[in-house]
Amino acid sequence: MDFDIVGYIAGTLTTFASLPQLIKSIRERDLSSISLTFVLTFTTGLSLWLIYGILKMDYPIIVFNILSLMFWIPITYLKIKEEMRKCGMNWVKKLLKK
Amino acid sequence: MDFDIVGYIAGTLTTFASLPQLIKSIRERDLSSISLTFVLTFTTGLSLWLIYGILKMDYPIIVFNILSLMFWIPITYLKIKEEMRKCGMNWVKKLLKK
Repeated sequence: MDFDIVGYIAGTLTTFASLPQLIKSIRERDLSSISLTFVLTFTTGLSLWLIYGILKMDYPIIVFNILSLMFWIPITYLKIKEEMRKCGMNWVKKLLKK
Repeated sequence: MDFDIVGYIAGTLTTFASLPQLIKSIRERDLSSISLTFVLTFTTGLSLWLIYGILKMDYPIIVFNILSLMFWIPITYLKIKEEMRKCGMNWVKKLLKK
């Protein structure tokens, strides 16, 4: 039996799982319960998977990780923006207290 | 050159990235900005990756996915609990309005 089909279904699920997360994050502009360390480390890991796929010329790894990065780079961007806004507000609060 | 090291670093990053997410979710008990569809689909995908690893007797795939599931099953549990609590509260609100 060819087990590759299981791998392709698994890869499709773990990759496209991130699409509803991206849609929710764009719609609600709220990523407060998502860990910044998680998104940064995860996106770095996905980039390394892509490099690994390119080095090995492994097309499924390349395709799945390009897709995943298309979902996770915008999520990471939104999270960093939220954190910066939060830091900015803390600055404002500190200034107002003075 | 042996490219496997890149794959191992990538796998370690994408796997352990989820640990700070789990810690944050347990501490804050807030998963409101995490998509339920994402956690359910992602955890199902990880389980399929584990089955694929077992079928192919591919130990790195088995180890990375057991670890990932150890992080994502509790996150999924917490998210489902939060959703159920929210639904419960909606029920209470509807009852109070009557």
